[in-house]
Amino acid sequence: MRQKKFLLPESEIPQAWYNIQAIMPNKPLPILNPATRAPLAPEDLFPIFCEECSRQELDTVHEWIPIPEPVREQYASYRCTPLVRAYELEAALGTPAHIYFKNESVSPAGSHKLNSALAQAYYAKMQGVTNITTETGAGQWGGALSYAAKKFGLECAVYMVKASFNQKPYRRSIMQTFGAAVTPSPSMSTRAGKDIITANPNDQGSLGCAISEAIELAVSTPNCKYTLGSVMNHVCLHQTVIGLEAEKQMQMAGEYPDIVIACFGGGSNFSGIAYPFMRHNILEGRKTRFIAAEPSSCPKLTKGKFEYDFGDEAGLTPLLPMYTLGHTFKPATIHAGGLRYHGAGVIMSQLMKDGYMEAQDYEQTETFRCGVLFARTEGIIPAPESCHAIASAVHEALECRRTGEAKTILFNLSGHGFVDMSAYERYMSGEMSDYDLSDEELARYIASADALNR
Amino acid sequence: MRQKKFLLPESEIPQAWYNIQAIMPNKPLPILNPATRAPLAPEDLFPIFCEECSRQELDTVHEWIPIPEPVREQYASYRCTPLVRAYELEAALGTPAHIYFKNESVSPAGSHKLNSALAQAYYAKMQGVTNITTETGAGQWGGALSYAAKKFGLECAVYMVKASFNQKPYRRSIMQTFGAAVTPSPSMSTRAGKDIITANPNDQGSLGCAISEAIELAVSTPNCKYTLGSVMNHVCLHQTVIGLEAEKQMQMAGEYPDIVIACFGGGSNFSGIAYPFMRHNILEGRKTRFIAAEPSSCPKLTKGKFEYDFGDEAGLTPLLPMYTLGHTFKPATIHAGGLRYHGAGVIMSQLMKDGYMEAQDYEQTETFRCGVLFARTEGIIPAPESCHAIASAVHEALECRRTGEAKTILFNLSGHGFVDMSAYERYMSGEMSDYDLSDEELARYIASADALNR
Repeated sequence: MRQKKFLLPESEIPQAWYNIQAIMPNKPLPILNPATRAPLAPEDLFPIFCEECSRQELDTVHEWIPIPEPVREQYASYRCTPLVRAYELEAALGTPAHIYFKNESVSPAGSHKLNSALAQAYYAKMQGVTNITTETGAGQWGGALSYAAKKFGLECAVYMVKASFNQKPYRRSIMQTFGAAVTPSPSMSTRAGKDIITANPNDQGSLGCAISEAIELAVSTPNCKYTLGSVMNHVCLHQTVIGLEAEKQMQMAGEYPDIVIACFGGGSNFSGIAYPFMRHNILEGRKTRFIAAEPSSCPKLTKGKFEYDFGDEAGLTPLLPMYTLGHTFKPATIHAGGLRYHGAGVIMSQLMKDGYMEAQDYEQTETFRCGVLFARTEGIIPAPESCHAIASAVHEALECRRTGEAKTILFNLSGHGFVDMSAYERYMSGEMSDYDLSDEELARYIASADALNR
Repeated sequence: MRQKKFLLPESEIPQAWYNIQAIMPNKPLPILNPATRAPLAPEDLFPIFCEECSRQELDTVHEWIPIPEPVREQYASYRCTPLVRAYELEAALGTPAHIYFKNESVSPAGSHKLNSALAQAYYAKMQGVTNITTETGAGQWGGALSYAAKKFGLECAVYMVKASFNQKPYRRSIMQTFGAAVTPSPSMSTRAGKDIITANPNDQGSLGCAISEAIELAVSTPNCKYTLGSVMNHVCLHQTVIGLEAEKQMQMAGEYPDIVIACFGGGSNFSGIAYPFMRHNILEGRKTRFIAAEPSSCPKLTKGKFEYDFGDEAGLTPLLPMYTLGHTFKPATIHAGGLRYHGAGVIMSQLMKDGYMEAQDYEQTETFRCGVLFARTEGIIPAPESCHAIASAVHEALECRRTGEAKTILFNLSGHGFVDMSAYERYMSGEMSDYDLSDEELARYIASADALNR
């Protein structure tokens, strides 16, 4: 019987994360204080983030960062995750390519997000923090942080965009089942929320507002820290367990990837699978291609500009050197909520600029078409975000069919879609459009994109 | 680091299912033709079920039934499933017991149901069948069969109770994503459905009606067969891969279970984990306890009677010798839809009668209380059905705390609850009752239970 899954015992969970900053030919540009334009030091981040995370954020020296044993113990409830050869997807596509995927959907929270949530919760606990907080839109990160907080005995407060709070009760319930306090944002619990509610009692919230509320809670509450699920360097660092395991598992399969693919929101799952392989490109001149798959409606890498920009809509964060569509860009309301972010993480932006990675963008309906094909062949209903990685893998596999090349393609299945079935329902009923925008929104989107391309 | 998960490579997927009928001291009583009271032969089942399944149903001779290689290949997409030591649940309970669970939630359909769906779809394909059909209430079996049909190139028609079709759109969408035609029942596609709709255009359906529609479709359509997801002996046979793997994995952990637990609807997941261990009780005099965990609102084993009864509400099936609450018993509308069945499978009924297993029943809110504890400690949100097994494991582990005994407890986690979050929502908001019955229904239930106990 041909081997389909490549498994590693939990003793093979990596002992250290891989910090690609240490080997980058061009280090990332500094993060700047928006008022003074002075580069930030780790201490400048301490009021918001945990100290250890702040240090990791700016560490350009240490190639390997040890994973604390209590974090490895928590990883053991779902790691090492399987590497799977997608034989039946290959057959359906009639491609000579070998397609593999790393299945991060098996985590308690249903996605890769837990890899960093557990680390951040642990460091918070070690520092004497008692409460952690964050914002969530689609709910993947909120679910992961809720679970991680519970594991390390922390209180967890999640500000959830009010529209999502009402429209995605399943995600909300998952967070509550894991023990988090979930507050619809805007809320009356912060100055930022009160101001918005006072101005507009029916405001349905935004990720920008939820971020503001979470940060306000963190800086105004003793022993409370803020956490983020993507974009930041330390988050991407924690995700490298994905690629480190995959590297060993590809060896078990007797292969090395020609192409590594992940969907791209802020860059956390992309970093996770890419960096460990990319180090061989940087250090040994390997020629693996790295493809970030993003939505056509939020194309920061394919159509954005590399420049200093704010990480949040309101302009409260430090200035980040990144590919961005502008911090006021309003992404279309696609189902892949995790990809609706205007910018790319600082490290990825530099790597993109230096030619170590490339990007492709896909229309929403195309991603669901590929997601349904994947479900019917490989049996896992993918998260809408992950459908973008699948679309890119399908694209490359079909290119192999055209050329006859038997390339080895590896993509990251970042999460499952069991709580996104309403999106599949819309796709199958023919109600889904590529943008899911009102005409007015579409006009604004086109104008915004035009402005960027000028 | 202590080992939490015990994994087997796919090469260790069992080569054969275990047929406990071959070693039972008292064989099950025969299944009877209701008109003639004559015992049925396999041929009598051919018009409805596949021939190989019909033969397996009545096979009391062969202890091991080889698993066809194409079925094993399909099993490889999710098997062997992990055996997990529930260290954190143990710690939360303060018990000296060692608690293990077999995680069947990792299958594409999210539950153990796929173990039999793949076998039944394969045998249908081998026999030249082109269409398979079934009914579904909660949707777990329908989802599994939809996926299995797709894997073996069969058309699949699922009759879904109309109330569930409208109230559980996520389950419906999962079946459709896997490529099945899902019809709300009653429908106009069958005589049975037409009669009901003509009499009552707003009828919201019942499992009994959906069974009638699926069987009518099977017997009136060329190359179409009916399938069932529980109760039948051949279904339970296919589930024994669970226990056979668990036996090897318990050896890896250096333990042997003192207690084996599974939730109980018709008996498929109970059989699956229990039979392989129970054979050592029968053949070698081992003293492992086997506990079927059922809902208080549908207590066929703890309060039912052993007698010949119909398998369906309408009385269309052969007469089955089983523990039953009566085929017209109306179970309360608890969230664990998969446990709302009036009878127990024929083999289990005999084993229960002969003292090889026992049963416990649990109130709905108690099962969710234990399910939330499990989610917060072990990270998997369990299906409402599986919450019953967890409640029983918790009960036994607390008993160990009382007595100081370090017993080894193994339970089957039959499925995850990602598409049952509305039930958790109701539990956490305090809206859930033990029965979820109207006063009128509750009165009927009590009268019905009283009648049985007389």
